[in-house]
Amino acid sequence: MKTIEVRTDARIDMVEITREVQAYLGESGVEQGAVLVYIPHTTAGVTINENADPTVEHDLQEDFQRLVPRTQPYYRHREGNSASHMLSSMIHSSVTIPFEGRSLALGTWQGIFLCDFDGPRTRKVHLQILPA
Amino acid sequence: MKTIEVRTDARIDMVEITREVQAYLGESGVEQGAVLVYIPHTTAGVTINENADPTVEHDLQEDFQRLVPRTQPYYRHREGNSASHMLSSMIHSSVTIPFEGRSLALGTWQGIFLCDFDGPRTRKVHLQILPA
Amino acid sequence: MKTIEVRTDARIDMVEITREVQAYLGESGVEQGAVLVYIPHTTAGVTINENADPTVEHDLQEDFQRLVPRTQPYYRHREGNSASHMLSSMIHSSVTIPFEGRSLALGTWQGIFLCDFDGPRTRKVHLQILPA
Repeated sequence: MKTIEVRTDARIDMVEITREVQAYLGESGVEQGAVLVYIPHTTAGVTINENADPTVEHDLQEDFQRLVPRTQPYYRHREGNSASHMLSSMIHSSVTIPFEGRSLALGTWQGIFLCDFDGPRTRKVHLQILPA
Repeated sequence: MKTIEVRTDARIDMVEITREVQAYLGESGVEQGAVLVYIPHTTAGVTINENADPTVEHDLQEDFQRLVPRTQPYYRHREGNSASHMLSSMIHSSVTIPFEGRSLALGTWQGIFLCDFDGPRTRKVHLQILPA
Repeated sequence: MKTIEVRTDARIDMVEITREVQAYLGESGVEQGAVLVYIPHTTAGVTINENADPTVEHDLQEDFQRLVPRTQPYYRHREGNSASHMLSSMIHSSVTIPFEGRSLALGTWQGIFLCDFDGPRTRKVHLQILPA
């Protein structure tokens, strides 16, 4: 397992980490399998989406905040970040991506994004290779 | 890794692929582990849900469109399919299912469904076995 | 693969299963890899979130019901639990967590929770180790 650190710049932020995941694959020497990208935080997540046009990231982040706005009358958690916890469960704490010939089997437009829902912070990402 | 192709018939559509995943397990000869079902597209996803009563599929698809309607005043992505990208991140790009004795450990009512959020199209699905 | 049973106490309920997953790792003797936690039900799911302050669980459960209320005019499924099916697809049927030295690489505040969306019931959870 390898752990990398990623710096985010806003409360809701997405940072692409595809290159770091691919680099880990290259170092590992494993030819075929899947790589698990795991976020050990309860107010962040990870997703796969388009990395070609940055307006997609913008629109996703607006949708996150429309579906789970920052406050609700029923929220009891005193840290004030219940919406960040909800987005972490909704978007998910991990992605698993197959690879062959030491190369991620991502689609043409796919990138891997750390999603911070309670930034800006420095976040950890665990990478674990599962051989086929 | 094996890649299959699936044809969808509507903008929002679900197509069951359980049989194809089980067939891949049978061919592989691996007795125990998990199979990763991965969608290499940014406007589609994959989910596990009931395959006995088709009204469940209908109700899921209506909920997808209620939660993420086709347009929003804040959408900037010019292709007009930001809602499809959001549903891809919400529903997820992959599922991982355990198996034993070359047989998927699905529950009685569970089926595996490719979800298209921007169809109709021909979609690819990557299948990768991870031995236990 | 090992299967455990978990009793839930309400229609919408979360039950922490971190200890059971860690115990399975300890028994297995595998030093490094990932553990797949899989729910073989179509009206339940599993998530990773904060296990320190129970108000987080409360707030998550309220958000589940706000986003997917129990009834909709367009629901056709006669069992009356379409919302439970939708939450199962939204929250996901599995989580995969890396481990090293027979110890889950969870973050400080992370716990693993079975989420029932149609309880109270006794639910099954499949655990499968994928060695690195």
